[in-house]
Amino acid sequence: MTKTPDSAVRSFIDRHEDAFLADLSDWLRIPSVSADPDRAGEVRRSAEWLADRLRATGFPVAEVWETDGLPAVFAEWPSGDEGAPTVLVYGHHDVQPAAREDGWDTDPFEPAVVGRRLYARGAADDKGQVFFHTLGVRAHLAATGRTAPAVNLKLLVEGEEESGSPNFAALVRREAERLAADVVIISDTGMWSETTPTVCTGMRGLADCQIDLYGPDSDIHSGSFGGAVPNPAAVAAELAAGLHDADRKVAVPGFYDGVVELTDEERALFARLPFDEEQWLRVAKSHGTRGEAGYTTLERVWARPTAEVNGVWGGYTGPGGKTIVPAEAHLKLSFRLVAGQEVEKVRESVAAWVSERVPEGIRYEIAFPGATRPCLTPLDHPALRSTVRAMERAFEQEVLFTREGGSGPAADLQDVLGAPVLFLGISVPSDGWHSINEKVELDLLRKGVETSAHLWEDLGENFRR
Amino acid sequence: MTKTPDSAVRSFIDRHEDAFLADLSDWLRIPSVSADPDRAGEVRRSAEWLADRLRATGFPVAEVWETDGLPAVFAEWPSGDEGAPTVLVYGHHDVQPAAREDGWDTDPFEPAVVGRRLYARGAADDKGQVFFHTLGVRAHLAATGRTAPAVNLKLLVEGEEESGSPNFAALVRREAERLAADVVIISDTGMWSETTPTVCTGMRGLADCQIDLYGPDSDIHSGSFGGAVPNPAAVAAELAAGLHDADRKVAVPGFYDGVVELTDEERALFARLPFDEEQWLRVAKSHGTRGEAGYTTLERVWARPTAEVNGVWGGYTGPGGKTIVPAEAHLKLSFRLVAGQEVEKVRESVAAWVSERVPEGIRYEIAFPGATRPCLTPLDHPALRSTVRAMERAFEQEVLFTREGGSGPAADLQDVLGAPVLFLGISVPSDGWHSINEKVELDLLRKGVETSAHLWEDLGENFRR
Repeated sequence: MTKTPDSAVRSFIDRHEDAFLADLSDWLRIPSVSADPDRAGEVRRSAEWLADRLRATGFPVAEVWETDGLPAVFAEWPSGDEGAPTVLVYGHHDVQPAAREDGWDTDPFEPAVVGRRLYARGAADDKGQVFFHTLGVRAHLAATGRTAPAVNLKLLVEGEEESGSPNFAALVRREAERLAADVVIISDTGMWSETTPTVCTGMRGLADCQIDLYGPDSDIHSGSFGGAVPNPAAVAAELAAGLHDADRKVAVPGFYDGVVELTDEERALFARLPFDEEQWLRVAKSHGTRGEAGYTTLERVWARPTAEVNGVWGGYTGPGGKTIVPAEAHLKLSFRLVAGQEVEKVRESVAAWVSERVPEGIRYEIAFPGATRPCLTPLDHPALRSTVRAMERAFEQEVLFTREGGSGPAADLQDVLGAPVLFLGISVPSDGWHSINEKVELDLLRKGVETSAHLWEDLGENFRR
Repeated sequence: MTKTPDSAVRSFIDRHEDAFLADLSDWLRIPSVSADPDRAGEVRRSAEWLADRLRATGFPVAEVWETDGLPAVFAEWPSGDEGAPTVLVYGHHDVQPAAREDGWDTDPFEPAVVGRRLYARGAADDKGQVFFHTLGVRAHLAATGRTAPAVNLKLLVEGEEESGSPNFAALVRREAERLAADVVIISDTGMWSETTPTVCTGMRGLADCQIDLYGPDSDIHSGSFGGAVPNPAAVAAELAAGLHDADRKVAVPGFYDGVVELTDEERALFARLPFDEEQWLRVAKSHGTRGEAGYTTLERVWARPTAEVNGVWGGYTGPGGKTIVPAEAHLKLSFRLVAGQEVEKVRESVAAWVSERVPEGIRYEIAFPGATRPCLTPLDHPALRSTVRAMERAFEQEVLFTREGGSGPAADLQDVLGAPVLFLGISVPSDGWHSINEKVELDLLRKGVETSAHLWEDLGENFRR
């Protein structure tokens, strides 16, 4: 396969890096905090700024897309090559709230370069990671001598990600035709560390569940009646405790049906990551590990479905004691799902399991308010191979694999567009997402630009339709 | 054995019933609500009124006893007979709050006789049941021709029972010498029903327990960490659910050590009570039964030790979902105890059981803030036999047995004085304790007077020192 020399990409970036950082800084100065209604205008300004900038980059189409909430930005640059694949890059232009008074060393909306770090709200999450694609595609064109990218390149940059993407699924469904793609690249994640570049191949899904249990018509005297009538708080506890067996496997029959098991290759690759459990526990602010027997900590959070008690309440919770059988108790549960699990089947399994375990005399309601499907791209998927090669050219070292234990709107894209989803992120754990002193490592930002430049070339060559 | 003719007691009561009811009504007009600081003066007035009345009845000693809170009344009438047993009657002169606006048909502090019922706050709980002893002892003297009772009769009438008896244990310890008795008669309970007179032979004890569980240093993301670190809410659930085995027996090793088992005779006598489970469930406001296998509902609440979840809380409890592993969770438990169980041993068993079950990575604190010991008088205790005979003379029918599932200050008397405790009450479930339209059945109040009259005679004869 013919490759553009890496040096051609690098020298183009060298020449344009200062202007690129100046542009990025302009964008970072716009406080596009989606959670703050007073800053809705700034989010709009951010969208318009980005659409302008994408047009200046060369995208023939760059539009601000309205939603029922805050606007997204869509851009498109057709390849002109019939067999070229279509790639949709996802990111977001809104940011988390931030104020100097929170403890920032500098103004969060006045970017500051210190050494090889750029400090600003949104530097890593997610403006920096969206923006590297703009210089990336220009480097791709310059190095290959093309006038249009080797792929049909689409960008969708959301304006409400930090507010839970309330209108994103609807937007994707509405614009499914224009968003149609052969692969989706999410640029809103990170990699293992500065020295261990990785590609993320999947996210877990999520199914929320609330169970409301009702016993006596009011709190009743535990002396007069205790031990002879069912106690909804005890039943809540039985359900929550019964979720796991002695091996900490989820005990709901059918829960694991269809689960895509880890391959030996994936387990071996995970095992090669320089994982320090003590360090991980410090980040987790936890004081011990506990999980499904037979799996490592990384496998547990990345690749295994779980059941978690997010909240429980019932009966008397004030100071001192109150000897009652409480009238009601409540459980908030969530299930993390992995590829192969169907949300609807999981819900049915949980509902059937609960129905069998609630004793006579307790009325209950069960609700499954929300769900996100899992997504996973196999290690041998050609688009993933392209991504790995592009990163390896940029980083000049082997790229390993991670997954993401959380759940996100990526699955909406996967489900509506029917395309595999990859996660290309150059952020590192120390970047301070959602925290004070958020920053991006300039050297990694540059690797992002390089990766982007190589990726369009590689996909255009190796992921033809 | 020589008995005074029952007719002698009855004719004395006939002659004095009107005056007795007029006096009781005067007392009921005093709104001695111990929970209301504005009525502390009324509680004091009630104590003074009672002490005066007891002196007028003939008690050579009748004193208002100060406490750190509201005053009690103590009275004593020595028998003069060397071999006579000493009996301490317990009751209380404070009442629950009440106001016409709560829905009473009449003014709660202006007694109203409607048919053969006397309506007023305190009519049954507990002024009526304390006061029947005043006419009872006079009927006893008149019918037997004695000038002093056949027993050394002591009365202790508390002023803070409706406020949780905060100063009672201290008072009993302080005055243990003057309160010394061979048997304690609690006149602050009820009997099965108007047509089924019963004597209560015991109360369950109580040991409160709070368990605070701490996991991550703050709530952490259940996507990033869930399934790999211990969750304190799940551990709280495991503890609460683990309290019972599949037979709903308490699963804490050692919990049942020393438990005085029900005798076949007791079980047979309980079974003779006209128990209607549907009616009982209505009173319990519950929709099903659940309890220890092998025992009836009455046996479960009266005679079996239990573990109850009074409260549980941890994690997110607001609207919607929040995908966290919570930082902490809490359990409020209480254990009802029966005769033979030692509070300290139960606490040790529970603490050891918890310590074995809390997984690594969860820190916990366990506290046992309060406890009340159980009390139980065997069916063949001579003082109990006397009480049954006295009631059977008054009611002219067989007397059956109950126990009380709750726990109360009776155990303080039992423990400090080292005397068996009996429960002689003539109230019935429809009397509306702590509710609106509290009343006492005048025919039962009269049976109380008769029982009291017969009881001193029988104890003096059959329970000699």
